[in-house]
Amino acid sequence: MSDVTTHAGSRRREQTRARLLAAAHEVFAEVGMDAASVEMICERAGFTRGAFYSNFASKNELFLALITQLAEAKLDEVAVRVRGLPADAVSDTRSLVRQVVGASLGERMEPQLISEIRTQALRDAMLAEAYLAWQGAMRSRVEGIIAHVVDAYGLRLRLPIDEAAQLLVDVSDDTCTRATIEGRGAAEIAEQMNSRLERLVGVLVENPPAGG
Amino acid sequence: MSDVTTHAGSRRREQTRARLLAAAHEVFAEVGMDAASVEMICERAGFTRGAFYSNFASKNELFLALITQLAEAKLDEVAVRVRGLPADAVSDTRSLVRQVVGASLGERMEPQLISEIRTQALRDAMLAEAYLAWQGAMRSRVEGIIAHVVDAYGLRLRLPIDEAAQLLVDVSDDTCTRATIEGRGAAEIAEQMNSRLERLVGVLVENPPAGG
Repeated sequence: MSDVTTHAGSRRREQTRARLLAAAHEVFAEVGMDAASVEMICERAGFTRGAFYSNFASKNELFLALITQLAEAKLDEVAVRVRGLPADAVSDTRSLVRQVVGASLGERMEPQLISEIRTQALRDAMLAEAYLAWQGAMRSRVEGIIAHVVDAYGLRLRLPIDEAAQLLVDVSDDTCTRATIEGRGAAEIAEQMNSRLERLVGVLVENPPAGG
Repeated sequence: MSDVTTHAGSRRREQTRARLLAAAHEVFAEVGMDAASVEMICERAGFTRGAFYSNFASKNELFLALITQLAEAKLDEVAVRVRGLPADAVSDTRSLVRQVVGASLGERMEPQLISEIRTQALRDAMLAEAYLAWQGAMRSRVEGIIAHVVDAYGLRLRLPIDEAAQLLVDVSDDTCTRATIEGRGAAEIAEQMNSRLERLVGVLVENPPAGG
């Protein structure tokens, strides 16, 4: 019986977290991270400050959890596409990148949020640690994805895999940020990301998949 | 006589701008861009708000002018090193990058300031335009530097020169920002920048300078 209670409690806790994250996402989109207060987020989610602080130590921690959730969802999509790649569907680097990156990558990058968190991390040592842990986790997922593709197609890279992963993460982030500052829409951002990553992967891969 | 007056006036104006920029740099280092007010900057520089607003339309414009000044100074140093490269001193890609990038690059990148301005540019269309113009100017100076080196050593690049310039600017910026969040000092930041750019240039150059 106590197992069932604990289970229900942990599910309720998950739901509270999920609602706080969704509320934070909405409030962030409306007023930005600086102006988004714990009060506003609690009100939007329909929770007390007590519920907030039993889930997150601070507003910064909540926003880092939000960006982690969004990035994980995006990498999940990429991982699904990578596992679904048929051997004969990849005729060249261009088509490989297009199939792995996909059209949806531009939509959920949230460059404003990443940029605000990075700015805060430059000032705040506790957030810095959490930010670096998040970046490390992202990079190692991207390493896994690259390793899978490299194995599947017998590719040789001109950089060690961790360096290649860092480069792809950085270039995706920079391209998305710049395109957003330029006022581009989601489709254009995805297109810029695809074409820049295509050229970069073309340089990184020593032996492009044959055919075309 | 009126020419002399105009000349003295324009020199005084230059000095006012320079003092405001130096004051902004100090105040920024102490309290960050958000907390740095026009009042604080004017007080530090010993000017009235009238003098401020006859030189800059806003605090954002002042900080963009500051980052432009710092970036120009850094690129001037790089340009001097590039022009001074003797043909026989460059034995391989590693030594080429070390001699061009130099040890001083980490000191003046001001990643906090760049990160704050970028965050603001994501929110503010007027600043966005000025930010993009600044980034474009930086990139085209880097293109000029790359073109000079490529010519001098008969190098072939695996990417068009504008794309290579963008990549080197982005990777320098990202490396410096990450190393700062990690709490590294100036010497370590310069070392990380050198070694990351070395590997990247090694990939970009199809025919590395012989010897070594």
